[in-house]
Amino acid sequence: MAEYPAKVYLNGKILNSEDAKISVFDRGFVFGDGVYEALVYVNGKLMFEEAHFKRLNEGLEKTQIHFDSSTLCKEISRLLVESGLEHEDCLVYLQITRGIAPRKHSFPFNSTPTVMMYAKSMDLPGINPIHAKVITVPDQRWLRCDIKMTSLIGNVMANNIAHSQGAYEAVLVRDGRITEGSHSNIFFVKDRIVYTHPANEYILNGITRKVAIEMCNKLDIEVKFEAILENNISDMDEAFLSGTTTQIASISQIDDHIFYTNNQTGTITKQLQEVYCELKK
Amino acid sequence: MAEYPAKVYLNGKILNSEDAKISVFDRGFVFGDGVYEALVYVNGKLMFEEAHFKRLNEGLEKTQIHFDSSTLCKEISRLLVESGLEHEDCLVYLQITRGIAPRKHSFPFNSTPTVMMYAKSMDLPGINPIHAKVITVPDQRWLRCDIKMTSLIGNVMANNIAHSQGAYEAVLVRDGRITEGSHSNIFFVKDRIVYTHPANEYILNGITRKVAIEMCNKLDIEVKFEAILENNISDMDEAFLSGTTTQIASISQIDDHIFYTNNQTGTITKQLQEVYCELKK
Repeated sequence: MAEYPAKVYLNGKILNSEDAKISVFDRGFVFGDGVYEALVYVNGKLMFEEAHFKRLNEGLEKTQIHFDSSTLCKEISRLLVESGLEHEDCLVYLQITRGIAPRKHSFPFNSTPTVMMYAKSMDLPGINPIHAKVITVPDQRWLRCDIKMTSLIGNVMANNIAHSQGAYEAVLVRDGRITEGSHSNIFFVKDRIVYTHPANEYILNGITRKVAIEMCNKLDIEVKFEAILENNISDMDEAFLSGTTTQIASISQIDDHIFYTNNQTGTITKQLQEVYCELKK
Repeated sequence: MAEYPAKVYLNGKILNSEDAKISVFDRGFVFGDGVYEALVYVNGKLMFEEAHFKRLNEGLEKTQIHFDSSTLCKEISRLLVESGLEHEDCLVYLQITRGIAPRKHSFPFNSTPTVMMYAKSMDLPGINPIHAKVITVPDQRWLRCDIKMTSLIGNVMANNIAHSQGAYEAVLVRDGRITEGSHSNIFFVKDRIVYTHPANEYILNGITRKVAIEMCNKLDIEVKFEAILENNISDMDEAFLSGTTTQIASISQIDDHIFYTNNQTGTITKQLQEVYCELKK
């Protein structure tokens, strides 16, 4: 996965990756002033396309980036064809910044948003086979984590701490409460009740998070929107991550607390993984 | 000021602004993963050059961006000459990102940092003539404001609120305490004692902030490193902002509280403005 895509869509043009360049005055570059989405294209369809575009539009609105995303789906199709990926499963990344303007903090009057997208081949397993060891890291991000923005240094630094320790993900802790992962959401299970942080300004309301909740509802599994305290991790029966490429990932260990050995998976985690797998068909 | 510079320095080359382009895979663009500095070049010298480079190096270290900044001063001189600005007062902006890599949160192993700089003519007044009306805005930024990073959306959104209300600056409030401005530091004066937020992870330790403190020391004005509560603003005698281009700026009004009418300036603010003016000679 750690490779460049062949093609990049940039403001209506599809270019070879090495030719996809933006002005150094793009506010995405000088201010991290942009929103983004990552989707998966599986079996010839963009999964949860509507939900991703709804969130994108909400982000554009919250940040007052004036961009009409209604033509993007068609442009993604064009990108997939020109990338030779229309018959492959792939990741589609898209980023919309406020555009190019002389550097000044306040929003420019008439900048044209910059639209960048790419698709790259990705082998999405039926069920994520990971038995993830994760670590807790202080949540130092800003207080509008509900907006999916490219000012991501807080996520990046937390993720890098996990990566440098060989952990699958950094699980973020703010004021003693577990919020989410550096690029995923987190759930806990205790006595067949599923817990996840409420969708407020401390977390990104992940699309797969919402799907996981819907699956629980259909399976008559109770969901409580409560943050789990870091101190209570060891009381939990199961824990799992959710995310667009993470899918539903079993957590085997958080810091020193071991949930499972021998590649076992919790009952509810496994149930959700199996239902999620069906959604892709 | 809201214009593009003529020339941009990009990784050793000096280009016309319109030709200064970076890869869309630059981590400055996709993650806001870069540090920056803004300096002023006045009367043929970069003001507080050493302090700016010390902070830049600290930022590079804190973010583990491996870049040797020791040749940058020479490169700034070259940029000023090629921009035709070596005999003018100007603003010098420089930004160093972690460089180009396939998008993945954790730090890439071998990326080469991207270095972008530009200089543009700026008429820096002897004393900032503003009698600033400012507003308070919730401080929603991350918890490492001590690092001068380009993931600036929190600052940008706060600044835009001020701008849209015709205010000179957004004064940020976290947990009832005044931290700093969206792109400046703030000081208060009460009974001839100067107050400013301690230089911890909630504020950027501004170079002009440090100079203001040094000036107070020389003038035998006591400085207390204590955050002022939003609720106590109206008890204060004076308030002023500091910053590289802001210099020392008198605040006439914060929200509904008026410090001065008729373009008056507080005694200590005025004293500091006059001493600061001398430093530029």
